[in-house]
Parts: sequence; C-alpha cells; structure tokens
Amino acid sequence: MEKQALQQLNQAVQTVFQQARQHVLTKMGEKLTVAEKTSRKDLVTNVDRSNELFLVQQLRQLDPQAHILAEEGLGDHVTSLAGHVWIVDPIDGTMNFVHQRNHFAIMAGYYVDGEPTLGYIFDVMGNRLYAGGPQIGVTVNGQPLAKPADLPLSDGLFGASAPLLIHNRFQMQAVVDASLGPRIMGSAGIQISQVLAGELVGYLSYLRPWDFAAGRVLAESLGLVVSQVDGTPVNMLSSGAVLVATKRAQRAILAIVTQTM
Amino acid sequence: MEKQALQQLNQAVQTVFQQARQHVLTKMGEKLTVAEKTSRKDLVTNVDRSNELFLVQQLRQLDPQAHILAEEGLGDHVTSLAGHVWIVDPIDGTMNFVHQRNHFAIMAGYYVDGEPTLGYIFDVMGNRLYAGGPQIGVTVNGQPLAKPADLPLSDGLFGASAPLLIHNRFQMQAVVDASLGPRIMGSAGIQISQVLAGELVGYLSYLRPWDFAAGRVLAESLGLVVSQVDGTPVNMLSSGAVLVATKRAQRAILAIVTQTM
Repeated sequence: MEKQALQQLNQAVQTVFQQARQHVLTKMGEKLTVAEKTSRKDLVTNVDRSNELFLVQQLRQLDPQAHILAEEGLGDHVTSLAGHVWIVDPIDGTMNFVHQRNHFAIMAGYYVDGEPTLGYIFDVMGNRLYAGGPQIGVTVNGQPLAKPADLPLSDGLFGASAPLLIHNRFQMQAVVDASLGPRIMGSAGIQISQVLAGELVGYLSYLRPWDFAAGRVLAESLGLVVSQVDGTPVNMLSSGAVLVATKRAQRAILAIVTQTM
Repeated sequence: MEKQALQQLNQAVQTVFQQARQHVLTKMGEKLTVAEKTSRKDLVTNVDRSNELFLVQQLRQLDPQAHILAEEGLGDHVTSLAGHVWIVDPIDGTMNFVHQRNHFAIMAGYYVDGEPTLGYIFDVMGNRLYAGGPQIGVTVNGQPLAKPADLPLSDGLFGASAPLLIHNRFQMQAVVDASLGPRIMGSAGIQISQVLAGELVGYLSYLRPWDFAAGRVLAESLGLVVSQVDGTPVNMLSSGAVLVATKRAQRAILAIVTQTM
C-alpha cells in the first residue's frame, strides 16, 4: 500500500479504537456476563463479543476486501494470509478485565500478503494507544515512540508467562535467572507494550495469533525481534511459544532455550 | 491520638507525599546513580537516598518526638515500637524504578505504641495515593476507598513473589493453582495496593518492615488480614514471609501452606 493510504487508514483505525475503548468503559459500568471457554481460567464476556462485533464491522467498512480473523469467531474463517488480513483481539487479558477491571488491551494487527503492516495495542485503563507500522513508524497517543535500547538480557526485566515459568518450559527459570527478574501481568498485549516501551527486555509466552498479531507489527517496527522459541519465524495463522525481545536479549534467550532442545 | 489530631496529621503527611512525588519525578529526568546493595538484583539510587532524607526531615518536623525507621538508614536506630514510630520506604520497587521508570511506590507507616495508625502508599507513575488508617478510613487521592469484597482464593488473582513461586516456598505453586493465577509486579507497595483495590485476593512475599508497614495499616483498615505465613501475627521490627489477603483467601492459603509445615 502507498504510504499516504496507510496513514489515512491508520488515522481511521485509531478513531475506531478510541470508540471501542469508550464502548468497553461504558460496558464495564454494567453487569458483565462471564462464561468459561476451555477452563475456569479461560473466560469470555459479553463485552469481548460486543466489542469484537464492533471492531469487525468498523474494519470491514474501512477495508471491505479484507479478511478478518477475530478471537471470538465473529469475523471470517481465515485460512490464508493472501491479500488484506486483520487479526483482532477485542479484549486481551479477559481474566484481568473481569477480576481486576485493569491491565487489559484491545488489539488488532493488519497483514498485507503476509507482510506486517499496521498494529494497534490499546491499554484501556492506562489510556495508552500504541499504533503504527514499519512504513509509518510507531506512536503512543499520537506521539512518536523511540526505538527501545538494544539491552542484553542481563540488564533488563523479563516478561514471563506463569505456566511456562512454574513448569520451567523452555528453560524459562534459567532465562529469568539470567535477567534481572520476571514480571507477570496476565496480558500479552500489556506485556508486549512494555517491551515496546523499554520496560521489559523480552516476553515469552504460549500465544495464539490474536495475542501477538498487533505486537509483532509494532515490535518489528521498533527494531525488536519476534520469533518462535527456537528462533524460527512465527506463523500468523498458528499458535505456539512466541518470543518478543531486543536483539541482544533474543540471542541470550535462544542460547539458553536451544541448548536443551 | 485524638481523631482530629490524626486527621490533621493525615492531611499534612499527604502534602509531604505530594512533594516527595514531585521530587522523585524531577530526579527521574536527571541521570540516576545506581549502586548494588546485597546483589545485582538489590539496588539503591541517589533518589532513594534524597527522597528518604526529605521524608525523614518532613516527618520529624510534623512529629518531633517520633522515631523513624527508614530503609536506607537515614532515620533513627529503632529497636522498640514504644511511642510514635514511622517506618519509611522512600522508593519501593527500586529495580522497577531504575529499569522501568514505572511500577514503584513511596511508602510510610505510622505506629503508636505498636498500634497500626496511619499508612501511605503512593503509586508514583499511576498517580494514586492510598492514605488513611483504622480510625479515619482509607482514601485514594482523597476519595473514600470501599472495603474490597471478601473473595475466596478460588475467585481471585494472587500476587506472588518470583523467588517463592519458582522455588515453591510455602507451597506457593499450590496456592497459585488454587487461585485464578499469579501476578508478579516486583513491588510490594504496588501489589499490596492492588489487594486494597480488590484487583488481587492476596499477596505473599518475603518482606522487610518498610515493605509492609504502610500496607499493613491500610489493609487492616479495609477488613483485610495481614499475618506471617503460618498465620501468626507480624512483628513490625523483623523480616519474614508476610501474607496480605482477604479473610477467606487467607484461610485457604493457610490451609495449603501449613499442611506441610
């Protein structure tokens, strides 16, 4: 896409995200309907669904030819990254949304023939909208975001996933030990935004496409690296252990993880 | 102390805390001087020291007869809780302060003949000042804070300490498993404030007096319970594993922890 068209789309999507945030804030004042998906730790609410419906409708209006993969299934059945593809998470960190009313995000990633093109992570309660892509740069609430320093693992805090840390999957305890310590927030969107902001040198978790579609675009636009845990490229249509990190932290983490693979 | 005198002191201390926050924010714009205390994961900065000096001077002016126990040693050598005792942490979560410039707190607790009397936790970047005590109630930025619901462990997120979780001290992995999941922020002040706000049903960590002196006052004022990990009372002049929780979560946690003690 041409840069000017991308910039226009970017502005329009940010407006949609502001509306989505208002929708979520309004709905938070009403009684939530909460249901379990695969377990008591995997929740969905009426707000996930209504916000997904809103986002899918709005994005479709902005880009009628796009296919939309959305967490709660209200988009399209997407089996290919050919053409324009949106990957949407209406509320990332639903557990936090339900039990903390804090620390959750609205997210969307835009891929054109598989190329990371635009990404959006809206930390709703922190009121910080990370937006942009490799061609137009990344902003937070409209202000340009500088690339985070390429810190080594030993000089930064590490965003961990609780199950991987407790069960020491992928040597995560050694990874954390080589860092300055782990932080666990329970939202991929919030933790990836902390890597973007330089608050964490990396984040490793088992993720589904909508958990990292936005974050991948934004991270790569800022000189960070996104890969599978063995260093191979991610596939935006499948789930797996995904690492978002500074270049130097990634090297150290891959060395720890792959020595026992 | 009489309620009116306490309310006056409370207002004066909140003014001091606002000044301390401004001091810290100003200093954050300058180059930090960082030193290791006991290890590379135990830091102190010039701002910890300058803010402690400021707080000790101001609190001494408000209450000249008080003894002041402060983390960086710029207060008094306190060996008794007789009389008026302030326990001060100028920056709780120094690692976060240095490496995230976020998620840290300024704290002070006030004990009169050992009785929890006033507490202050200032989430500096979130700009939320928790203040008050059992006689005057608890406010956040001046607005009354309601008591959090007495949720059971199974209905809430749990604030964990990374070393205890990784090494499964005090059965913390079973505790976390019985909850809806762990969250790790790296600051006792921030995590205890999340228990106060109802975002977590409990928090367990190895703490020193200044890590929980403020939080204990505020938590007990809101109907939460603070104890050692075996359920016995805390001692404000010694360190140990401290549990802050709702009454129902505490019962469940003690049952898990003590079955193997």
